[in-house]
Amino acid sequence: MTGTLHILGVGPGDPELVTLRAARIMAAAPVFACFARRGRAGHARSIAAPHLNPAAEELRFEYPYTTDLPVDDPRYPAAMTAFYDESAAAIAAHLRASRDVALLCEGDPFLYGSAMYLFDRLRGAHPVAVTPGITAMSGCWSRAASPMVHGDDILSVLPATLPAEELAGALRRCDAAVVMKLGRNLPKLRAVLDELGLTGRAIYAERGCMEGERILPLAERDTTPAPYFALVLIPGRQGTR
Amino acid sequence: MTGTLHILGVGPGDPELVTLRAARIMAAAPVFACFARRGRAGHARSIAAPHLNPAAEELRFEYPYTTDLPVDDPRYPAAMTAFYDESAAAIAAHLRASRDVALLCEGDPFLYGSAMYLFDRLRGAHPVAVTPGITAMSGCWSRAASPMVHGDDILSVLPATLPAEELAGALRRCDAAVVMKLGRNLPKLRAVLDELGLTGRAIYAERGCMEGERILPLAERDTTPAPYFALVLIPGRQGTR
Ligand SMILES: C[S@@+](CC[C@H](N)C(=O)[O-])C[C@H]1O[C@@H](n2cnc3c(N)ncnc32)[C@H](O)[C@@H]1O
Ligand SMILES: C[S@@+](CC[C@H](N)C(=O)[O-])C[C@H]1O[C@@H](n2cnc3c(N)ncnc32)[C@H](O)[C@@H]1O
Repeated sequence: MTGTLHILGVGPGDPELVTLRAARIMAAAPVFACFARRGRAGHARSIAAPHLNPAAEELRFEYPYTTDLPVDDPRYPAAMTAFYDESAAAIAAHLRASRDVALLCEGDPFLYGSAMYLFDRLRGAHPVAVTPGITAMSGCWSRAASPMVHGDDILSVLPATLPAEELAGALRRCDAAVVMKLGRNLPKLRAVLDELGLTGRAIYAERGCMEGERILPLAERDTTPAPYFALVLIPGRQGTR
Repeated sequence: MTGTLHILGVGPGDPELVTLRAARIMAAAPVFACFARRGRAGHARSIAAPHLNPAAEELRFEYPYTTDLPVDDPRYPAAMTAFYDESAAAIAAHLRASRDVALLCEGDPFLYGSAMYLFDRLRGAHPVAVTPGITAMSGCWSRAASPMVHGDDILSVLPATLPAEELAGALRRCDAAVVMKLGRNLPKLRAVLDELGLTGRAIYAERGCMEGERILPLAERDTTPAPYFALVLIPGRQGTR
């Protein structure tokens, strides 16, 4: 006897962009879990709020760092491993007591989502069901009213955390692109796009589908760092049909 | 006075993977429209069926070709242009009569969706609102229980319709990939993946989230052509945290 872990994508921000399936599972789950930065409500939890079972027990997993350490900082991997181990253990305790747990994830869980690390730890011992979510990029290009990928176009999705040369290499070779994880990497990305002559095609989307949404041509955005919830869209060849 | 065109993503196949927003708009729209291959029900329409306003008027746009012509066939562009012109005109007639129209799209509308061609034709004269949908790739990697993109991974999304050399070039340079539009291009793709040593990592997903779903390692799938609703997933570096 074990509960099921439901890994639920809750979409990019608007609670109406949750699927019927995620809403049904959230309304029934006796326990829900979410990640949050220290001192923040937790993005996925805010999106899910109107749909949650009001009697559910909440597990809140606070990331050990409030700002991102560089990936090569020696403290980082060990702290994150311990953090995911403890989070998985907290969920496993409920599953062993036959209680289903809904793990809430912004966007789609398997696209740059922390939930993947809990999935890896729990899938062997417990049933796990994944519900896809609307990705931040789909939410943003819909709000930008910007068709993205046509015909034979190649779309690349990449994080702005990559070194400038790798960003440039990847962006040179695709037709359409989405650059995620902007934050303090925005000035670097902007320099790369300027160099490649792509800035004129690029759209900046901050807090897409959420309160405080800002969508504008990247060329009109200043070059100060971006907040966490921001990405850049580079639409592919536009349709001539 | 004009109606609004709602371009609605209805997800990959399961009617429960529709968003609350798409379901609300479908239940209210006095007119809905969908694309379909000749003699077929229309994939988006089947997904939407349980959610549609039963009194709504239906516009059905049948593609002029039942099998895909090569993109370089001289008859193709002219026939498709005329087809999209006529489809847009049929929608515009309703919008001018102040009736909202819900255009149903499989997956997400702006990722390789035909709706983009109607969007281009209608956006100038009428209000258009786009509702994102769960993409086929998210649906398939969730059903495959296969985390896809971690950390600094680059994801490429590309159509199997590209020439073998271009497929190879793109696949060589990314960490994770999704190859769409398999059909009769599967044997070509398989040869490219074999050559790059990627077949062992690749997952074949046919009719993901639908009746008749088949998900298996690509290496175990025969090399006959695939049906229309099939894609290949190549997961990125797996998490070690
Ligand atoms: C760790 S990734 C998670 C992506 C998510 N799983 C998805 O499917 O979209 C976080 C990044 O997603 C992007 N993001 C998430 N929500 C967003 C929003 N509402 N508007 C703009 N970007 C967003 C930002 O680039 C952010 O740095
Ligand atoms: C014209 S594209 C449309 C993609 C769609 N707009 C999306 O967001 O996923 C059609 C391709 O999507 C893929 N596809 C769509 N639905 C699928 C499903 N349920 N299972 C597997 N592949 C699917 C196939 O590769 C198919 O050739």
